[in-house]
Amino acid sequence: MLEGKFFSSIDPTFMLITHSSPTILFIGGHDPTGGAGIQADIETAVAHHCRAYSLVTCLTAQSTQNVQRLYPQDRCDFLQQADVLLADVNPDWVKIGLMGDVDIALAIADILAELNKPVVLDPVLAAGGGRELAGPALVRVMNQRLLPFVDLLTPNQAEARRLTGRQKPQPAVERLLDQGCGYVMLTGADESAGSQVMNTLYSQTEDPYHLTCPKLPDVYHGSGCTLASACACQLAQHQTMKEAVQAAQHFTWRSLETAEKTGQGQHLPNRRFI
Amino acid sequence: MLEGKFFSSIDPTFMLITHSSPTILFIGGHDPTGGAGIQADIETAVAHHCRAYSLVTCLTAQSTQNVQRLYPQDRCDFLQQADVLLADVNPDWVKIGLMGDVDIALAIADILAELNKPVVLDPVLAAGGGRELAGPALVRVMNQRLLPFVDLLTPNQAEARRLTGRQKPQPAVERLLDQGCGYVMLTGADESAGSQVMNTLYSQTEDPYHLTCPKLPDVYHGSGCTLASACACQLAQHQTMKEAVQAAQHFTWRSLETAEKTGQGQHLPNRRFI
Repeated sequence: MLEGKFFSSIDPTFMLITHSSPTILFIGGHDPTGGAGIQADIETAVAHHCRAYSLVTCLTAQSTQNVQRLYPQDRCDFLQQADVLLADVNPDWVKIGLMGDVDIALAIADILAELNKPVVLDPVLAAGGGRELAGPALVRVMNQRLLPFVDLLTPNQAEARRLTGRQKPQPAVERLLDQGCGYVMLTGADESAGSQVMNTLYSQTEDPYHLTCPKLPDVYHGSGCTLASACACQLAQHQTMKEAVQAAQHFTWRSLETAEKTGQGQHLPNRRFI
Repeated sequence: MLEGKFFSSIDPTFMLITHSSPTILFIGGHDPTGGAGIQADIETAVAHHCRAYSLVTCLTAQSTQNVQRLYPQDRCDFLQQADVLLADVNPDWVKIGLMGDVDIALAIADILAELNKPVVLDPVLAAGGGRELAGPALVRVMNQRLLPFVDLLTPNQAEARRLTGRQKPQPAVERLLDQGCGYVMLTGADESAGSQVMNTLYSQTEDPYHLTCPKLPDVYHGSGCTLASACACQLAQHQTMKEAVQAAQHFTWRSLETAEKTGQGQHLPNRRFI
């Protein structure tokens, strides 16, 4: 499972891309530690030879220990930044992470409606360190206004419960698919007790597709961002959904296996490999 | 000149870094196109196997054509983000780009005084598309409060004139060195008429060190950010100043040679190679 597909698929002579890289618009928060947020997105894009555009939903004060504070953008400012960018460039895919504010979430829904591109959404509802990053109103907007645009949703167990109000994974996933998501990859690392982590890809038409990997010993800052971004990069490179999630899980696992502890808290993923 | 040093110095078996990567704190603006700003910094760090931390001075609305608007952060918010980050991590170097606001520039001076780390400063005074990004007060603060902390300053011809009020390169550089900069690399691409671009490294103790490279045909978005960031990465890897500027110029040239035109305006550098 962990060997090969993504790494062996890279031609080592393919050192330079001169044109036509897949392009992805990343919409998310900025994390000064670089473990999560748009830096995780950008680093993941680099490692996949994709070109990143980015819109910042909110700045944050955070360390490797926890998020101290969010500074969401003004909705009009955010929309102006999106308008100027998207009048000029035309991304192939969109990946959304932390929104941090209900007004920004509504603005994103407007952007998605106009842009009409495939979407990966990582529903960031809490920081790795525990701090809540989304209130009930944002959860409602995510459900009602955003999920219908989403091709792949990547909740962990706690996020699936909060998004749906359903305590068991299977009914929660059914509810998310009913809201209009094409696929849901339910991740297991946040509540995995054994030596393995299992992520499962669900859709309304295919059997559940289980992916396992060995559980790693540390606590990581930005693993969910990395996984969702790697999915978007793989999809932008025209992988099938199953291929994309498998390769993305492998990429993420490698980034965590080689993570570095540079502060007092969580380890920071190492996405500086190709 | 353009062959080899940076690329040949990379051991191809060195695919993963597990610990002790050099760390750089990037302080600059956010550019949604990804050509310039902290994305340029992050991508350059990835390509050099360095770890990036970042503080956003201002968000921007911009396309590949020009900067439409700056949204500087509140000084207190910016300082809070810096405090939370720097209480937790300890960068080896600092690289500063767009500040966009005199209050942020003053806050950066306070951070540098406390942090006591070596600094590369790219004095971004105008966008590639022409828009002014710094008024007279910011130029004054840069001169009086920031230059004394700077180990390497990377102005282009127009920036050297605006920072010093001196019209000729040599007296302008002397003035910058008198302000306390360790080295000044005066770049030539902005006013180069011939088939070559010449950058020159100056200090108060060494002879000027000239570096040339073939002029490329297009107009690029983020070349100055890339050059200054690559200098910081090389310096964080303990290269000498001359080695660092030579390798950084080579890296930048390669990123421009393989740049992509994805919008209606300037080409975006390709830093997605290692």
